[in-house]
Amino acid sequence: MSSQSVDPSTGRPFGPVLPDSDSTEYSEVVAAAGRAARPWSVAPAGVRAAALRAIADGLVASRERLVSVAALETGLGKSRLVAELERTCLQLRMFADIVNDGSVAALLVEVDKDTSVHTGLPQLRKVLVPIGPVAVFGASNFPFAFSVIGGDTASALAAGCPVVAKAHPAHPQLSEAIGSLVERILAGVGAPDGTFGLVRGFDAGIRLVADPGIRAAAFTGSGIGGRALYDLAVARPDPIPFYGEFGSVNPVFATEGGAKRDGFVSGFLDSMTLAAGQFCTKPGVLVVPRSAGLIPQIREQVSGYAPGLLLHAGIASQFRSGLDHLTAKPGVEVIAGVGAPMEQASFAQGPVILRADATKVLADPSILEAECFGPVSVVVEYENDHEAIAVSEQLSGCLVGTVHGDVSEPLSAILIERLAWVSGRIVWNGWPTGVAVAAGQHHGGPWPATTNSLFTSVGPAAILRFLRPVALQDVPQEVLPAHLRG
Amino acid sequence: MSSQSVDPSTGRPFGPVLPDSDSTEYSEVVAAAGRAARPWSVAPAGVRAAALRAIADGLVASRERLVSVAALETGLGKSRLVAELERTCLQLRMFADIVNDGSVAALLVEVDKDTSVHTGLPQLRKVLVPIGPVAVFGASNFPFAFSVIGGDTASALAAGCPVVAKAHPAHPQLSEAIGSLVERILAGVGAPDGTFGLVRGFDAGIRLVADPGIRAAAFTGSGIGGRALYDLAVARPDPIPFYGEFGSVNPVFATEGGAKRDGFVSGFLDSMTLAAGQFCTKPGVLVVPRSAGLIPQIREQVSGYAPGLLLHAGIASQFRSGLDHLTAKPGVEVIAGVGAPMEQASFAQGPVILRADATKVLADPSILEAECFGPVSVVVEYENDHEAIAVSEQLSGCLVGTVHGDVSEPLSAILIERLAWVSGRIVWNGWPTGVAVAAGQHHGGPWPATTNSLFTSVGPAAILRFLRPVALQDVPQEVLPAHLRG
Repeated sequence: MSSQSVDPSTGRPFGPVLPDSDSTEYSEVVAAAGRAARPWSVAPAGVRAAALRAIADGLVASRERLVSVAALETGLGKSRLVAELERTCLQLRMFADIVNDGSVAALLVEVDKDTSVHTGLPQLRKVLVPIGPVAVFGASNFPFAFSVIGGDTASALAAGCPVVAKAHPAHPQLSEAIGSLVERILAGVGAPDGTFGLVRGFDAGIRLVADPGIRAAAFTGSGIGGRALYDLAVARPDPIPFYGEFGSVNPVFATEGGAKRDGFVSGFLDSMTLAAGQFCTKPGVLVVPRSAGLIPQIREQVSGYAPGLLLHAGIASQFRSGLDHLTAKPGVEVIAGVGAPMEQASFAQGPVILRADATKVLADPSILEAECFGPVSVVVEYENDHEAIAVSEQLSGCLVGTVHGDVSEPLSAILIERLAWVSGRIVWNGWPTGVAVAAGQHHGGPWPATTNSLFTSVGPAAILRFLRPVALQDVPQEVLPAHLRG
Repeated sequence: MSSQSVDPSTGRPFGPVLPDSDSTEYSEVVAAAGRAARPWSVAPAGVRAAALRAIADGLVASRERLVSVAALETGLGKSRLVAELERTCLQLRMFADIVNDGSVAALLVEVDKDTSVHTGLPQLRKVLVPIGPVAVFGASNFPFAFSVIGGDTASALAAGCPVVAKAHPAHPQLSEAIGSLVERILAGVGAPDGTFGLVRGFDAGIRLVADPGIRAAAFTGSGIGGRALYDLAVARPDPIPFYGEFGSVNPVFATEGGAKRDGFVSGFLDSMTLAAGQFCTKPGVLVVPRSAGLIPQIREQVSGYAPGLLLHAGIASQFRSGLDHLTAKPGVEVIAGVGAPMEQASFAQGPVILRADATKVLADPSILEAECFGPVSVVVEYENDHEAIAVSEQLSGCLVGTVHGDVSEPLSAILIERLAWVSGRIVWNGWPTGVAVAAGQHHGGPWPATTNSLFTSVGPAAILRFLRPVALQDVPQEVLPAHLRG
């Protein structure tokens, strides 16, 4: 097996055919990660921080070349990809800062507490140690920020764990280019051989999560693929943590006041068509009062949105079948987009708007569960607050839930309380796409949004996924290696 | 099916026969927990703290009665059980303090950070919300501190999660007594019905981890039972976190200097016979220099240790088969204890000491993996530092690793570095039994010691297992329910 780049605007393959890692190559990469685990774990914080910064600098220095390759392979557009590359560098530098200023240990406040003041207790102090080699599975929709050198790899390297990344078959050349760059830069700062490695191919991915040499896995992508890998990770004789982020329907609710806000319809359409709807935070469901009469506006305005490119043939095909699945449900009507001729030679796809009454959704809540990756949303119209609340109680776990409303409307607070039960983020009078890298951010949610709703790849706490505490009981400094000293 | 108390000193059943929860009772308990989830999650911190303190007060008020029942059911002895009850109250009060002073939110420092100072970013603030009803599976060896009202239940209630506890069949009357006490006290402080419930029986336990109404499970006990429940939890359509703490061999290493320390042999024997060796932190392996010539001392001193009572017939039988398994391994010799007549009518068991050369252990490292719950340890004698280090590199995940040594010996620091790779706690010149409840404590370790090496039931961070962050993006205070306000 092998992979080759495909141009989403033509559906045509281009560039080199990259063979999957064979068993020898795979074993060498994982063995090298194992050999690197101890020396990288004890590498001084300054070395790890310098490595992360050097990688960021390397990405910036190669920006033109990397963005050009990424644009050809993903169709995401250069300006968006430049911004994504910058975000990726921001993440790398954030983790460098955390490692360098010692605030890793402070992420869990209690780590630094010393109990020697309590009578009769031994002296106890917690330190955090890396858990060992981490397998990273990136996503096709963020080829920089959530792939080979995204938040998962950055946080694992920062934690002191070697990384084995699986190249994404939808951006094979970019994966290779970034993988080589990271390996070269790590070697340049004196990181041990094997601190970073890249493998290619479906089989290599399967093998990684079951490999005794891998101590954790981090995954961003579809729920179907992610669940299969999760099942392998937890079925091991020695189960490992599997941090999966799958995406969700990310419902947006509007009260009467919210639906009247300026730019509400265009804000919605901008958000659901961003990158051709290929954000895991895309608003898949818009729940609005029927009295607002938004459907004609939506139908009119959506016609102004050009088709976007789906990332690859798999997503194009899943989008079509997801759409068939949704439109086959009783009560789901097509408002716009379906039936328009799809350019067969490319993966171009215009926005699709569906509609259903809240009563139909309450009769078949599966309408709320079916994430369909790409530019489609279901507008759910409710007759009264009671129906809106009832819909909010049928939701599954989401990355983000949104309310557009007025602070004076009781429904606003009720919906926020309900959304807090099922979402990892709540947005008020805004849109769910766009996930700022910040300490106050949380990009996770109850299943099926993520496998672990406490920690995900976004934000400083991501590093805790690859560390574990060790309590030192009465251990004098003299017998502690440098990396375990307080 | 049903359960009945058994006196470990005679093997005779006594007291009422308690029927397992039937399907109706089971469903009612879980449904009530589901109904309690929302009101308990929004109960003011003061109410939750008061509830935890009232439970502690209730345990103290009923101490005589509870300790008497526990002593009859477990054979653990009243003074130890009184101390364990006090520890349990300490845990409850610690979580009450955490809830009441708002430091739950501060456990993850970054929770409170506000990113509004960064230009162009939305205002983001994280709050922690409870994840919903938690199933708790206690252990037979700590009927107070790690059972119905142990650290798992205390931390879940503190987090705002209802608890469904499974009664332990080895202390059924105590489980009932504590369960009733907790239910009564929670009702007294105005907690919603169903905030705490108890179910009985093996089938109810299996059903709990697979129940859609249960959002997390916490387990303390054997690796075999725990793994079976873990497998069910992760195989669900919606997998839930399973926090299992299984125990381990907890190796103790001594350098030449360490082996000469005053009271080394008696310290070891005290630790491995504590509660008849039924601590998950029991030193199961003692790795010592052959040159220290400790075997004669150990053989002599161990004869002064009286048999202790194993907790129940299952442990007595597993101990015997575990011992057979160990003694069948090539190179494992019996030093003391095996062959002594076991009192057949009771579960009394004297200490057993086995011995093996380090070279034999290196040839068959499974000697280091077999936790045998009860009063048995394997003394491994090494010829030189190289052998000691080689043994340390064959270890599986442990709750705790110990080094006895002198700060001047290079071997001390090497062993500590090695133990940090596989243990959750490192003890210097002490013994692994005894786990202080303190912020600097960590009672966990890599698989197979625990299923999650980041968080366990001991210490303040236990509460984070039952919470998840929600990021609030630009949400004004006016539309936030009280429990989500900053």
